[in-house]
Amino acid sequence: MYQLNEILENKIINNLIAEFERSPLQLNKPHESDAEIIKLGNLKLAMTTDSISEEITTGLYDDPYLIGWMIVTVNISDLAAVGTTPIGILISEIIPKNFSDEKIKELQRGISDACKAYDTFVLGGDTNEGENLILTGTAIGIIKNENTLSRVGCKPGDIIYSSGRLGIGNAYAISRLITKSNSLLNYKPTAQIESCKIIGKHASCCMDTSDGLIATFDQLMRLNNVGFKLREDWEKVIDENALKYSRNLNIPPWLLFAGQHGEFELIFTIPKALNKVFLEEALLTGFEPIELGKVIPEKKVKIPLYGKMMPIDTAFIRNLPAETKGDINHYLESLLKYDSGLKNTPCMNFTTH
Amino acid sequence: MYQLNEILENKIINNLIAEFERSPLQLNKPHESDAEIIKLGNLKLAMTTDSISEEITTGLYDDPYLIGWMIVTVNISDLAAVGTTPIGILISEIIPKNFSDEKIKELQRGISDACKAYDTFVLGGDTNEGENLILTGTAIGIIKNENTLSRVGCKPGDIIYSSGRLGIGNAYAISRLITKSNSLLNYKPTAQIESCKIIGKHASCCMDTSDGLIATFDQLMRLNNVGFKLREDWEKVIDENALKYSRNLNIPPWLLFAGQHGEFELIFTIPKALNKVFLEEALLTGFEPIELGKVIPEKKVKIPLYGKMMPIDTAFIRNLPAETKGDINHYLESLLKYDSGLKNTPCMNFTTH
Repeated sequence: MYQLNEILENKIINNLIAEFERSPLQLNKPHESDAEIIKLGNLKLAMTTDSISEEITTGLYDDPYLIGWMIVTVNISDLAAVGTTPIGILISEIIPKNFSDEKIKELQRGISDACKAYDTFVLGGDTNEGENLILTGTAIGIIKNENTLSRVGCKPGDIIYSSGRLGIGNAYAISRLITKSNSLLNYKPTAQIESCKIIGKHASCCMDTSDGLIATFDQLMRLNNVGFKLREDWEKVIDENALKYSRNLNIPPWLLFAGQHGEFELIFTIPKALNKVFLEEALLTGFEPIELGKVIPEKKVKIPLYGKMMPIDTAFIRNLPAETKGDINHYLESLLKYDSGLKNTPCMNFTTH
Repeated sequence: MYQLNEILENKIINNLIAEFERSPLQLNKPHESDAEIIKLGNLKLAMTTDSISEEITTGLYDDPYLIGWMIVTVNISDLAAVGTTPIGILISEIIPKNFSDEKIKELQRGISDACKAYDTFVLGGDTNEGENLILTGTAIGIIKNENTLSRVGCKPGDIIYSSGRLGIGNAYAISRLITKSNSLLNYKPTAQIESCKIIGKHASCCMDTSDGLIATFDQLMRLNNVGFKLREDWEKVIDENALKYSRNLNIPPWLLFAGQHGEFELIFTIPKALNKVFLEEALLTGFEPIELGKVIPEKKVKIPLYGKMMPIDTAFIRNLPAETKGDINHYLESLLKYDSGLKNTPCMNFTTH
């Protein structure tokens, strides 16, 4: 656990669950899976719970429709990362007294639209009055694949893929929290409930980018004792609007991987021997996975940056939101300073890995 | 839905879910069950979600251990009301920045102890920072009985039972919110996960007393188009400490049924023809159900009070917390005034029903 505990979020979770016994029916260990996996006779159920709270108080989300859409999406995305067919979701809503009927209608419309998009249903819920709007969703589904997909299982040599382009989550966060512009950035991510069917059949591990790509890489690195090397032309995996937006603001594009507001794509690894079959099957269904790079033996996350193959201090990046205590400008300044440091790092083993 | 909508809480829920499609796998309709019931092949799953939020902001709960105990209990109690064997619970915690490590430890100890008491497990969770402590639990279980127990199914002539003595929830609420005394009242209710096994085999309907007995009767009345008549010596079903406490404060004991903070007992009905078998089976396991009265054809909740068989305005009582806008003293005054009115009601058909 030491390596996991280097990350504040993991440490907090480990403290919270220290006294809890594990269910003998539960197949996954803590941290090892985006959703909990329960064996019931011949059946495997997946369950997950996720709240939307800080995103509302910080102002990251203020459109009730988006909040409704997201409470379903964040939970269904966790189910997707273990290759699940969703059954439904339960939603508990804490609603402030002054929240208008119109806003409630929009909130519920977002929930309803997301359920339709994922072919799933609100099964039940709870409602309370409170100071701030807080939603908590709990999604449940069935795992139909024989092998259980989790965050654990990738090996050096495996090919890393993303289910889609990255970076729009963090570009959106910059637009909401820093520039506070009414930009045209359209943030409405989709849980990968369709593509996860193929991913679940072939992938050696999988995790969604709910906290951004670097957090995903970092957690997978700690769980699998491997590293990840991004492809040379990684800018091509960035969402076009996000890339343009970061360029306009003079923010180094790789920081779109570093911020902790993700896009809910699936990051997964395919063993080399299965790659051909996987790609053929993906092609047949119209799913276009994006190759990100390779799994490497060295426990580092490496990005080709400024003419060098740069190991990134992912622990620093993941702990930075807590270190900067929610001061978003301080957070961005620290990231930019870290980036400047990288620029001035002497040339390293660019070609050896 | 008209009759359900007379109750503000039902109306709010109906508005929230108006646009949602129902899952074809879901066996229960809205309001008809303490937990959602999902059919998966030969398997029936039960799920429920419940938050503890207002109970904390009002000061009703401030002991972290009790809060931890309760987030498990309220959810497992809903599973018990549909005759479920629990699999586990997921818990999302919103924790304020200034909440000490010691308090967190107590909170988690309460959760852990409750899980052990119900032979169940925390399967997963989520944690966020927020202004106020808010916990949301989602419990899941398997229904092993063939017939599905819900709030619907009782008929006139059925015998009404409680799984245990009532009133301690409201006595505790008075001690916390009104007298603010450090009384000796010990509030630590237990979800009826053991007795529900026998109840689930024989009962025609079931609902827990999470909102107090009168709210339970009122909701069952609206769903089943029947009424409920309490036994003559109903004081005997009240918890001894609660009864003593209400007497000391000069609060009419029947108001311990009226307040909306319950004791998480199960209220259930047994058809006359099954009563003997039910009682024999209960006896064998050491379960001592308490007879409360009879299901009657007339859609009224009747309590023998002040020498009369008194129909209670349960809609008034259930809507009173909203009407009095959280002013707890105004709420109690209104209840006492209503009670005075009953005293002065001319003699009614005491013996006819």
